[in-house]
Amino acid sequence: MGLRRTIEWTDGGVSIIDQTKLPDDLAVVICKNTERVARAIETMEIRGAPAIGVAAAMGIALATKGEFSGEEDLVKKLDSAASRMAATRPTARNLFWAIERMRRVWEGMRGAGAMAVAEAVVEEAKKIAEEDVKVCLRIGENGARLLEDGDCVMTYCNAGALACVEHGTALGVIRSACRSGKRIEVVVPETRPLLQGARLTAYELKSEGIPFKLITDSMIARLMQKGIVDKVVVGADRITRHGDVVNKVGTCGVAIIARRYGVPFYVAAPLSTVDLDADAEEVAIEERSPKEVTEIRGIRIAPVGAEALNPAFDVTPKDLVDGIITEAGVQRPPFDLSLFFRQSDY
Amino acid sequence: MGLRRTIEWTDGGVSIIDQTKLPDDLAVVICKNTERVARAIETMEIRGAPAIGVAAAMGIALATKGEFSGEEDLVKKLDSAASRMAATRPTARNLFWAIERMRRVWEGMRGAGAMAVAEAVVEEAKKIAEEDVKVCLRIGENGARLLEDGDCVMTYCNAGALACVEHGTALGVIRSACRSGKRIEVVVPETRPLLQGARLTAYELKSEGIPFKLITDSMIARLMQKGIVDKVVVGADRITRHGDVVNKVGTCGVAIIARRYGVPFYVAAPLSTVDLDADAEEVAIEERSPKEVTEIRGIRIAPVGAEALNPAFDVTPKDLVDGIITEAGVQRPPFDLSLFFRQSDY
Repeated sequence: MGLRRTIEWTDGGVSIIDQTKLPDDLAVVICKNTERVARAIETMEIRGAPAIGVAAAMGIALATKGEFSGEEDLVKKLDSAASRMAATRPTARNLFWAIERMRRVWEGMRGAGAMAVAEAVVEEAKKIAEEDVKVCLRIGENGARLLEDGDCVMTYCNAGALACVEHGTALGVIRSACRSGKRIEVVVPETRPLLQGARLTAYELKSEGIPFKLITDSMIARLMQKGIVDKVVVGADRITRHGDVVNKVGTCGVAIIARRYGVPFYVAAPLSTVDLDADAEEVAIEERSPKEVTEIRGIRIAPVGAEALNPAFDVTPKDLVDGIITEAGVQRPPFDLSLFFRQSDY
Repeated sequence: MGLRRTIEWTDGGVSIIDQTKLPDDLAVVICKNTERVARAIETMEIRGAPAIGVAAAMGIALATKGEFSGEEDLVKKLDSAASRMAATRPTARNLFWAIERMRRVWEGMRGAGAMAVAEAVVEEAKKIAEEDVKVCLRIGENGARLLEDGDCVMTYCNAGALACVEHGTALGVIRSACRSGKRIEVVVPETRPLLQGARLTAYELKSEGIPFKLITDSMIARLMQKGIVDKVVVGADRITRHGDVVNKVGTCGVAIIARRYGVPFYVAAPLSTVDLDADAEEVAIEERSPKEVTEIRGIRIAPVGAEALNPAFDVTPKDLVDGIITEAGVQRPPFDLSLFFRQSDY
């Protein structure tokens, strides 16, 4: 990692690592228009809440590369691109945060002329990407203080460089701790159905030389009952004001089990993941194709015609969360994440 | 199901369904000698605590089909077959229960002559199989009373006909409830690494026309937080006197999550699974090949060289168990399973 960003704005289009091909192939896709970026998000060629926020911004910015007959026409196309992006996946807050931020650019520039708007829109998308890099480094620094030399840390899914532009959130915390000289060993649940743990987190850790052990999601309690795991750090797709955490399905189970065994459970995410107005019960939880459950990498594992459910996220209630790590610092329960937004010193 | 038993003694050898080939092929393997049965247990062509108990008994009985020069020689061969069986897999109590029961036959017949011993050994193995069928039906009846019309029941792994001779333990409870006219819907976690839920439980339920939904193991908490699951019923590989339950890895996580959401957690198993002398902390938990984690049905899912752990079982502590269903009845906590063995009326 570090050699290539997960997503980059280039003259030829938006360059993304196709994460469906990992860990076997590091394939890069150039998305030349908004629709292609939208499909990349939907098919999870790019995934991870911060990364799809950046992708949405760049996908919208690509609308400036098509033809338009003037400012009014461009704004119409940008609105349409924003709508397309908003329809890709429903759960991650960062996606909507990025779309809203992009929209403020063209809405705040009425009358400035098409070329000025186009330029500002592209600049904003690039800025969102650059900020993501800095924010992840801050999250890493803040969270690394919670890890001790010799810790065995469980993460879940992939909240790594591949879920962001680089460095990562939960994996960024582990990375920063390792770079500061702490010896950390990582336990990686595979994260069915799409195996982001086995495919992506394992790939990142292996590339970086951080020692890890892969397990199935069913082995989480066994490792904790053996006392092997010292701490858990996961990412998030949406966090409510009081600390309920919407994240990859399976996260809540990890938190419940961690509490049983007294293992601290931390969540690492940028403030763009925080939704101060959300009620956790009402966050839209994406239901994906049952095929992701009945097949693994194209191989059917269940009887023909077996029905399956496939909720992509779950909700970890705030009482199971021992700390939330953001670029603004670490908050302990009881959470009021609005306090982070009132600080001026980050 | 019901068309063919999981394991049968035939004139040609021990006939077993090769469970590694399900759900796609219903392949039958004829094991002609002790060693072949031992390998079938090790490779999990046959699995499930009650079924491997029966397999061990029949594997020993196959020693009588080889050549022997007299009673002393036969007993030596039976001892050797018993040792081979005991070395196949360490965790399921039923395996050792069956071996001990078989051993009592030839140890109790000293001087009766080789032919009499051989005949008695074969009869005992067949009797263990026949008893398993009756015991599972009793477990089913006893457990079915705990399920109500309209219940959505989660099971885990496969504690069905395929884990026994027929009918099953946990799935036997569901089967008996359905046969008594209750409408039951089942939630089936796939049960990584070897997918006994997706492959075997789904196969049995589909064959029997019992409605079910397959999920990944990571979705267990999500379904419970949505209030979808009314009860959990699982099998067991070894149960201690006071109700600690050793079962397929992942079971303990289900129990911890079920408790969080107030979902009753029941264990269904024959008394041959009960180990009155065991301390749960000291039960040998089998570690299997990491390849079962890094590959799924022969397809690698992790980076080349990724290390994995593969404990095959975990321990569900007694405080998480709401009831233990055996052929002798249902016991509620606090458990003292020795009481079951003092009853004379079953």
